[in-house]
Amino acid sequence: MSILVVGSVAYDTVETPRERRERQLGGSASFFSLAASRFAPVRAVGVVGDDFRAADLALLAARGVDTAGIVRRDGSTFHWSGRYHEDLIERDTLATELGVFQDFAPELPAGWRETPYLFLANIHPSLQADVLDLMVAPRLVVLDTMNLWIKTTRRELQEVLARVDVVLLNDGEARLLSGRRSLAAAAAAIRELGPERVVIKKGEHGALFFGRDSVLAVPALLLPEVVDPTGAGDCFAGGFVGHLAASGAKRDDGDPVFRQAMLAGTAVASACPEAFSVDGVLALDEAGYARRLATLSAMMTP
Amino acid sequence: MSILVVGSVAYDTVETPRERRERQLGGSASFFSLAASRFAPVRAVGVVGDDFRAADLALLAARGVDTAGIVRRDGSTFHWSGRYHEDLIERDTLATELGVFQDFAPELPAGWRETPYLFLANIHPSLQADVLDLMVAPRLVVLDTMNLWIKTTRRELQEVLARVDVVLLNDGEARLLSGRRSLAAAAAAIRELGPERVVIKKGEHGALFFGRDSVLAVPALLLPEVVDPTGAGDCFAGGFVGHLAASGAKRDDGDPVFRQAMLAGTAVASACPEAFSVDGVLALDEAGYARRLATLSAMMTP
Repeated sequence: MSILVVGSVAYDTVETPRERRERQLGGSASFFSLAASRFAPVRAVGVVGDDFRAADLALLAARGVDTAGIVRRDGSTFHWSGRYHEDLIERDTLATELGVFQDFAPELPAGWRETPYLFLANIHPSLQADVLDLMVAPRLVVLDTMNLWIKTTRRELQEVLARVDVVLLNDGEARLLSGRRSLAAAAAAIRELGPERVVIKKGEHGALFFGRDSVLAVPALLLPEVVDPTGAGDCFAGGFVGHLAASGAKRDDGDPVFRQAMLAGTAVASACPEAFSVDGVLALDEAGYARRLATLSAMMTP
Repeated sequence: MSILVVGSVAYDTVETPRERRERQLGGSASFFSLAASRFAPVRAVGVVGDDFRAADLALLAARGVDTAGIVRRDGSTFHWSGRYHEDLIERDTLATELGVFQDFAPELPAGWRETPYLFLANIHPSLQADVLDLMVAPRLVVLDTMNLWIKTTRRELQEVLARVDVVLLNDGEARLLSGRRSLAAAAAAIRELGPERVVIKKGEHGALFFGRDSVLAVPALLLPEVVDPTGAGDCFAGGFVGHLAASGAKRDDGDPVFRQAMLAGTAVASACPEAFSVDGVLALDEAGYARRLATLSAMMTP
């Protein structure tokens, strides 16, 4: 069963304490698509400029991502530039050049409105709502967001949150959105806003799932080295939604399939920081994925 | 099987964003003893001043802690004063008055040298070594330490580390001691220093166990409210060592009993921040402990 994702397709310039990489493939839709397409066919909706490399579109297509929804406009591709601190967790944004993304008005190719799984990646909540409006009875809707939208567009965010099944956000964002310090209280407050299930991502500390009637804590896999953490959250979402789509999960299902999806998200996300750009997730083969799932299971079993 | 603990018996003045409490019972040996005595008899070694309240000694004794090793000297009991930030994680130390602790030279009551389990709480590594010297063939030795000793007495710390079986420390301390950012690499480097098993505590993010041939990640229980986190790490140690003593664990055992001890430590530690001073761990009854273990197990089982 297919997944439709709407989000950014970008070029990232990333500086770590050890290396600098210019204008490499990034954006939430790119990371998500490459992570999710391991599990199910992915349809990507986004916009790029006339500077976007044909090789990058070909890369997505080669991995089972239908790029018919990525339109090309005159102008520059969304460009993000950031510098990571020594801990490879904290980072400073040096530049955000929206380019053609500024006037992005999502359109769906013919036949895509009936896609059963919808992932609304981290973009303006009004754009997320626009895409949701275009869909016909999606089976499951998952949304990601960030502190920027919580701070600047809370009303629009709350409107779209009321219409989704699962929300993913990090611990700081969960606290900001709910005004609660306790993550259990934060998740409960966010569920009141609409989404029946809440996933709180904590980076190197793993992720928490708050379901209909259960809670699951999944640790992050221990990495010998972090090269570039950019996109790890979107790769988590790709594994999570990918597993749900491959399982045919629907919103009325109980928590178990969502709990299993947390493991898939964690295993896929662990590959992302091991290389720059999308190279980490691209390098994850079937054997590597199975090995990570097994390691995770051993780490969680007393 | 009994546990001998050497550490501080203190009065703490604690300020949180909501409340201030003066000169309440604290210190690593106090928290540890009250947490461990649920599982096994505890023998406490320490020093207090002439200001130490008889009621506090009676409280320890009532919970199965043998206080014959806590000597009383002329002068003031060790006094720590600190203020927590709004997040109830970060804190500033406002004062550390060593008092009678300054000249503390641990002595063991008759018959205590053969105690099978030894917990060297977070005190100067030379004092930890002194107590280890006094012991006769302990079955298992567990050590806690902190950034102060890593920074100021690294040589002494490394000498005592070479003689213990398990070390407990937090993630920042593990990185400081090893010089490695990756916690897996940090634990491997610390194991090279002597202790065959390493526990890395991460507060609200749980704890990691690095054993002879296995790794376990245990999440922290989710608390509706944190009142005062002081002593949670020592309560973790109390549950951890308590479980090992109750199980008759020895250093040559495989990892499984240590992995189970991680759950006991986590369940007991979760009670500590729910009230000021030792009130949280005191309030934890058998039913509450069993309920926390069950919640933890559910949180860890996909």
